[in-house]
Amino acid sequence: MTSKLDTFFGAMADPTRRAVIETLARGPASVSTLHAPHAMALPTFMRHLKVLEETGIVRSVKKGRVRTCHIDPAPLVEVQGWLAWQREIWEHRSDRG
Amino acid sequence: MTSKLDTFFGAMADPTRRAVIETLARGPASVSTLHAPHAMALPTFMRHLKVLEETGIVRSVKKGRVRTCHIDPAPLVEVQGWLAWQREIWEHRSDRG
Repeated sequence: MTSKLDTFFGAMADPTRRAVIETLARGPASVSTLHAPHAMALPTFMRHLKVLEETGIVRSVKKGRVRTCHIDPAPLVEVQGWLAWQREIWEHRSDRG
Repeated sequence: MTSKLDTFFGAMADPTRRAVIETLARGPASVSTLHAPHAMALPTFMRHLKVLEETGIVRSVKKGRVRTCHIDPAPLVEVQGWLAWQREIWEHRSDRG
C-alpha cells in the first residue's frame, strides 16, 4: 500500500505524465499519438511512459509495430480513496480550524 | 495549476510526509509530536515538513518555543478535483475498455 502510493504520487508529479493520463482518460492511444504534442525525444518520452506503466495506471499492448496504451483506473481509485479518507477525517473532527 | 499539482504530488510521494498528513488530519500537532514516531534526525524530519509547507497543505504557527502545525485542505481539494475529473472522463467515455 505504502509503496503503491509512493509510486503513484511520484508518477503524477510531472506535467508530461499528467498530460498522458488526461489524453488516455479520453480513450486508448498509440505511443506515437501520445508523444506527438510533447517537445521531447522519443526515448525521453518512453521513460515517462515507463514510469506510468510501473504504477499500473497505464498498460500497453503491441500489435505489429504499433503499441497502444490504455488506462487501468484501479490505482487512481486507490489514491482517491486515500485522499478522500484524509479529507473525511479532517472535515469531521471536533477541533477543526 | 500545473506547478501546484507537481509540488503536491511530489510531496505526497513519501511515506513520512503522508504519515504527517494522516496525523494532522486528526488535529493540529506540535513539531515534536509529529516527529516522535519517526526514526530520523529532527533536521531530516524538518525538511519533510518544509516540503509539505511549500505545497500549502501544512501551515505552522510558533508560540514561544512550540511550533504547531495544522492542515490547510485547499490543495487537497484541488488535487481531488483533478483526479475526479480524470476518472469522470474515463467512466463516461463511449469506447471504455
